[in-house]
Amino acid sequence: MSLRYLTAGESHGPALVGILEGMPSGVPVEGDAIAHQLARRRHGHGRSPRMRFETDAYEILGGVRHGLTLGSPVAVVIRNAEWPKWREAMGVDAPDDPAAVAGTARGKPLTRPRPGHADLAGMQKYQFDDARNVLERASARETAMRVALATVARGLLDAVDVTVLSHVVRIGDVGVADGTVATPDDIGRIDDDPVRCVDRAASLRMQDAIDRARADRDTLGGVIEVLGHGVPPGLGSHVHWDRKLDTRLAAALMSIQAFKAVEIGDGVQLGAVRGSQAHDEIAPAEGNGAAVRRLTDRSGGIEGGMTTGAALRVRATMKPISSLTQPLRTVDTASGEEAVAITQRSDVCAVPRAGVVAEGVVAFELARALLDKTGGDSLDEVRRNLTEYLAHLPVTSVS
Amino acid sequence: MSLRYLTAGESHGPALVGILEGMPSGVPVEGDAIAHQLARRRHGHGRSPRMRFETDAYEILGGVRHGLTLGSPVAVVIRNAEWPKWREAMGVDAPDDPAAVAGTARGKPLTRPRPGHADLAGMQKYQFDDARNVLERASARETAMRVALATVARGLLDAVDVTVLSHVVRIGDVGVADGTVATPDDIGRIDDDPVRCVDRAASLRMQDAIDRARADRDTLGGVIEVLGHGVPPGLGSHVHWDRKLDTRLAAALMSIQAFKAVEIGDGVQLGAVRGSQAHDEIAPAEGNGAAVRRLTDRSGGIEGGMTTGAALRVRATMKPISSLTQPLRTVDTASGEEAVAITQRSDVCAVPRAGVVAEGVVAFELARALLDKTGGDSLDEVRRNLTEYLAHLPVTSVS
Amino acid sequence: MSLRYLTAGESHGPALVGILEGMPSGVPVEGDAIAHQLARRRHGHGRSPRMRFETDAYEILGGVRHGLTLGSPVAVVIRNAEWPKWREAMGVDAPDDPAAVAGTARGKPLTRPRPGHADLAGMQKYQFDDARNVLERASARETAMRVALATVARGLLDAVDVTVLSHVVRIGDVGVADGTVATPDDIGRIDDDPVRCVDRAASLRMQDAIDRARADRDTLGGVIEVLGHGVPPGLGSHVHWDRKLDTRLAAALMSIQAFKAVEIGDGVQLGAVRGSQAHDEIAPAEGNGAAVRRLTDRSGGIEGGMTTGAALRVRATMKPISSLTQPLRTVDTASGEEAVAITQRSDVCAVPRAGVVAEGVVAFELARALLDKTGGDSLDEVRRNLTEYLAHLPVTSVS
Amino acid sequence: MSLRYLTAGESHGPALVGILEGMPSGVPVEGDAIAHQLARRRHGHGRSPRMRFETDAYEILGGVRHGLTLGSPVAVVIRNAEWPKWREAMGVDAPDDPAAVAGTARGKPLTRPRPGHADLAGMQKYQFDDARNVLERASARETAMRVALATVARGLLDAVDVTVLSHVVRIGDVGVADGTVATPDDIGRIDDDPVRCVDRAASLRMQDAIDRARADRDTLGGVIEVLGHGVPPGLGSHVHWDRKLDTRLAAALMSIQAFKAVEIGDGVQLGAVRGSQAHDEIAPAEGNGAAVRRLTDRSGGIEGGMTTGAALRVRATMKPISSLTQPLRTVDTASGEEAVAITQRSDVCAVPRAGVVAEGVVAFELARALLDKTGGDSLDEVRRNLTEYLAHLPVTSVS
Repeated sequence: MSLRYLTAGESHGPALVGILEGMPSGVPVEGDAIAHQLARRRHGHGRSPRMRFETDAYEILGGVRHGLTLGSPVAVVIRNAEWPKWREAMGVDAPDDPAAVAGTARGKPLTRPRPGHADLAGMQKYQFDDARNVLERASARETAMRVALATVARGLLDAVDVTVLSHVVRIGDVGVADGTVATPDDIGRIDDDPVRCVDRAASLRMQDAIDRARADRDTLGGVIEVLGHGVPPGLGSHVHWDRKLDTRLAAALMSIQAFKAVEIGDGVQLGAVRGSQAHDEIAPAEGNGAAVRRLTDRSGGIEGGMTTGAALRVRATMKPISSLTQPLRTVDTASGEEAVAITQRSDVCAVPRAGVVAEGVVAFELARALLDKTGGDSLDEVRRNLTEYLAHLPVTSVS
Repeated sequence: MSLRYLTAGESHGPALVGILEGMPSGVPVEGDAIAHQLARRRHGHGRSPRMRFETDAYEILGGVRHGLTLGSPVAVVIRNAEWPKWREAMGVDAPDDPAAVAGTARGKPLTRPRPGHADLAGMQKYQFDDARNVLERASARETAMRVALATVARGLLDAVDVTVLSHVVRIGDVGVADGTVATPDDIGRIDDDPVRCVDRAASLRMQDAIDRARADRDTLGGVIEVLGHGVPPGLGSHVHWDRKLDTRLAAALMSIQAFKAVEIGDGVQLGAVRGSQAHDEIAPAEGNGAAVRRLTDRSGGIEGGMTTGAALRVRATMKPISSLTQPLRTVDTASGEEAVAITQRSDVCAVPRAGVVAEGVVAFELARALLDKTGGDSLDEVRRNLTEYLAHLPVTSVS
Repeated sequence: MSLRYLTAGESHGPALVGILEGMPSGVPVEGDAIAHQLARRRHGHGRSPRMRFETDAYEILGGVRHGLTLGSPVAVVIRNAEWPKWREAMGVDAPDDPAAVAGTARGKPLTRPRPGHADLAGMQKYQFDDARNVLERASARETAMRVALATVARGLLDAVDVTVLSHVVRIGDVGVADGTVATPDDIGRIDDDPVRCVDRAASLRMQDAIDRARADRDTLGGVIEVLGHGVPPGLGSHVHWDRKLDTRLAAALMSIQAFKAVEIGDGVQLGAVRGSQAHDEIAPAEGNGAAVRRLTDRSGGIEGGMTTGAALRVRATMKPISSLTQPLRTVDTASGEEAVAITQRSDVCAVPRAGVVAEGVVAFELARALLDKTGGDSLDEVRRNLTEYLAHLPVTSVS
Repeated sequence: MSLRYLTAGESHGPALVGILEGMPSGVPVEGDAIAHQLARRRHGHGRSPRMRFETDAYEILGGVRHGLTLGSPVAVVIRNAEWPKWREAMGVDAPDDPAAVAGTARGKPLTRPRPGHADLAGMQKYQFDDARNVLERASARETAMRVALATVARGLLDAVDVTVLSHVVRIGDVGVADGTVATPDDIGRIDDDPVRCVDRAASLRMQDAIDRARADRDTLGGVIEVLGHGVPPGLGSHVHWDRKLDTRLAAALMSIQAFKAVEIGDGVQLGAVRGSQAHDEIAPAEGNGAAVRRLTDRSGGIEGGMTTGAALRVRATMKPISSLTQPLRTVDTASGEEAVAITQRSDVCAVPRAGVVAEGVVAFELARALLDKTGGDSLDEVRRNLTEYLAHLPVTSVS
């Protein structure tokens, strides 16, 4: 039974709640690691004033004792600092006077669904006449919990020397230079950059693009690259469609709010080149007996649904935020009349921070695939099994 | 519990086997529907001589009686017409004289793993010194079974007037004209086209590109678009990451052999435009009281992880086939020496036929999401529940 | 995708946490329903002083707004009132001075595993030298969260007139009279009884047996019967082993801490009688055209893995509590020497309250099977689909 | 992702089909092991003439090469030797003349549902007016495939020295003597016994009971005990309800056709004794440093949802077969009139052969739990990981 998680909580509800089930025991959960990751997620040029309210005070309520996982489910709660303001509009209990609540600014039913958001389809599916009942859960606020839980999974990856990082490779029409590569050494620099871009020149142009979009009351999307270093070969499998690591990574990345494309390695570009230019040829690793190396990196480190031992590399595209301050046209579902979409406080561009979420879901999938490979119920056992596996490889891959 | 399936079988083994579990009763399984879909999958300019051997003789061995599903698991077996030739090399039982088998052309261990294929990572993961033990299962031959099982799921979709189709939008550097649209009316024309392309001019250039690649002993990939017409709003969900329909579609499409990218709607392009140009504005549907319509189709018919009622539209990129007749460089794992990769009979370009597979996995996911929505254990019950759901929508979407 | 849940939290940790995922929208969550169920679970002659500390202050942190479910995951947190006392011994963060913590009464490693508990196997599996790391999660305290989440599932059942109840049919060597039957009318009387027994004479003897066991510093187990009234026919399925409702009920009931047997209907007794005495014959329901009724109730309302429309009836056996005040023999894992098992505050007999947990897990499985049958994303839709299903039955069952 | 399987096929359909997914590579699949297990399942005093037709000719169609698993899904097909007789009544394709088929003995709709069988509930759930559409799949014939697939799982258990066996402990009112114990040494004797009973005197009385029941045109059920020897400690887990091994075993055993009760260890009896008599005290294993042993075996080798390292012991109760030659009362669903139930050829007592099925499902769950513990994708890796785990146990259990 694999690693799994559930999250709960509405954007303006009392809290986000998450449970991560299936971690081995003995994995370090550093005191401030979750806080650090949540702070990274709040980061970025283009963020909205709302982000300032997201202080993300969290508690670990289960599964960790004295800094180590217990093997039991890990539970995290992140309180909503704004909850007092929302207590009436989002209260759990039926209000004594529903009409009074519906008359308040926050409690008023939202009937002008935003194009590009879950609002309308959610109202249809769940039979709601108030879009708030949809958008509260559809909000990207939920990803804060995924980042928190992924931090625990990253603790396991750290312990076996797997590093996951991300950087922004495009915002709107501004992309990084061809051949731009990020490595674990760049992490500090990426996190310090206002748009989490490793290419300084591109970063300045991206910031400028964001500023212009803000001035025009518009929004921007972009593309993120997530990398995994130190990933052993043989995670995932070719034997069944739902065991392939690219299957799982595609699912995980596409599940992030507003993501519309996922690419493994060179992705879409691989559709335009010939086979002789599309694969990573194999050569002996010099001075290393039975080991082999790759002459290029086009596959993104995945062949046949399995990691090759080369760096993992995937890209994901985020569409521009659908809550514009210059709202889009819609229909008021209460009246059937033309209207402008409801406006929620929102970022101009959420791509930099979405990269942290993307890292998180990739880390979760790598931890899951690792545990599927090694089994083991304690960190020591996981480590032993991994070490033995690598020691018995018929061929060693050098990255 | 949702619709699910398992497939089994090696490329040169005795047969492919598949079980589809969770279908309601009473769904028509037309006598030649599976044969028809399997034939579509064998189609296409650029296919290899091997395809001629794939007569795909199949049997339904469970779950269907007198042309209708029984609600029980549906089992399909597709025999390998070439099995007599492979009986020794791929036999189930331990051979009396393993060395003799290893000395035959087909039984000889394969030790020159192909870049771009599962060969090397599979040998490492499963501890094999013969790549045949990997490539037999990693082969795209397995997708014949997915197409067969998906045909049963398509029977359900047909019964509720949902149509899934696909067409090729790029092969190598040749793409269709911007704005090319395919509709259910084009299905016959697409299937008659040698590369399953709806744009006749582009088709000719695609065929030419394939011919040139063949002449150069090279291979080509490309891009497929899959469309769903008649899809009701509200399939999938925004409430949890693994219930989102785009999550599932991304997984399903990326799981197809050699696929490296998945895009929902305008996909990667959405990362390059502003929010005001990225979403589908909503307007009253004229002359249709409570109904609404969309002014554009950029989202691919999915918002917030749910279908909107507009046509579903997704794209997937296939890399060029990794078995080249002019083989790539590799290492012989037995000797550690440089070598050229093993050569398997193979297509020059499998994109046209991969489109049929892509249709199949999308159809499966739509049937699954439909059943998650409607419940129901007989076709009548599914239909009733769907009709009632649509009759009670707070707002109707017109596509 | 079916209804599912995860729970987290250690017995003396800061809180229990639970997430229930897959509920439709619009299901009433009454203000005090969870409190009521949690109070029922604390009830019962034979409980320990610890129960007094279990005030079970809970919060719903997601998935419910204004008294109705939102379709999103429902999150519940139950705080541990004793947490301040345990903050050091069970703290999440690594202590500054581990040795100091290990020197405290609560922080001292537990090395004398209790026979009958998870202690020893858990230490082996997860590589612990402190049994506290196991017993904190293995404790039946976790079932408080299952009861809380099940209350939400019961809201759905209530809305379609399905009632789940339980009563104690044996404690130690005292059983109820043969033929004792409980109905929804008895719920108040059962809950008022100190051992939740519907047979007043047996109840007194059960209480006496508990008192005698306490005097002897011993413990008692027993048997619970759980009943479902108003359950429609056709929940579960015969088509695959893991869709059978009895499969799922057996799993759910056996998963409760200290449960060692599950029986459907007459259960073990059915192994001792002949076929002519083992089944429920079918007869026309008088004055009710197409309807049928059963002449007996031996099957427990499940045939072929499906509900028959008769009352559901299952029994489960709980072993005596393994924490005795007169402790059992064990080995000190630190020294390898003979020792007596660690003593935790504990009940003499937990059977009455375990019945409430058993109700909960049965309610969860019924809600899950109902949603698998009806589909539907709002209570209205679930109700409509159920009504239509029942209106179209080829034969109606009258219970 | 855990070991899993699907089965398909109707009792009188062309074949049974099964796929077992998740096996590591390199596990021996002995030429006649499946045949041997299928023959054991056909065994037993009390079987019907139908059994003679069950020659169970099977083929492995995937996942095995040269006597070893490939890590890919294992597919098995068991042909129905009687298929030619049933080709018309059970044909896959819609008949040209449905009325003609409905007029044949085998094709005639069955409208007198058998009490105790899935017939009636299945007709209601799936909206059928012919019980054949239900009973074909509900039949215990399906268990032949479970036995076949379980044989592959047993190959893995054999390779790590885990042995699963079963014996009959009750048929009707005849039970074995108290304290009867079966060990792996008894397997030959049990299989040679006409009712698979290790107690020779009881066996004779059981056979006599069966003969008397047959004479009375009645049927008998009974109780089976399944044992697991050599099971390492720590399979399963206490951390979540659905990871507990007893949860899974209860599900697996209850899922067998006609099973109505499952007991772990002393099961129901544990509800009647005091705690001081209910648990297995722990003592140092003499002459074995850090090892411990148990003084009794009441728990069945499972505590807290995990194996203890002692022998696994579970019991399951089968009700008498519901197809009596002296049929039970029912209603004709076509007419609404009183009727006698349809008669299918059937055993008088299926308990002996059901024991082989019970072994199979237990073996599957043990293999699954083992792989969850060890991970590993080849038998060598599984073995290494298990060996290392056992070498690092903080305390060793001696059984």
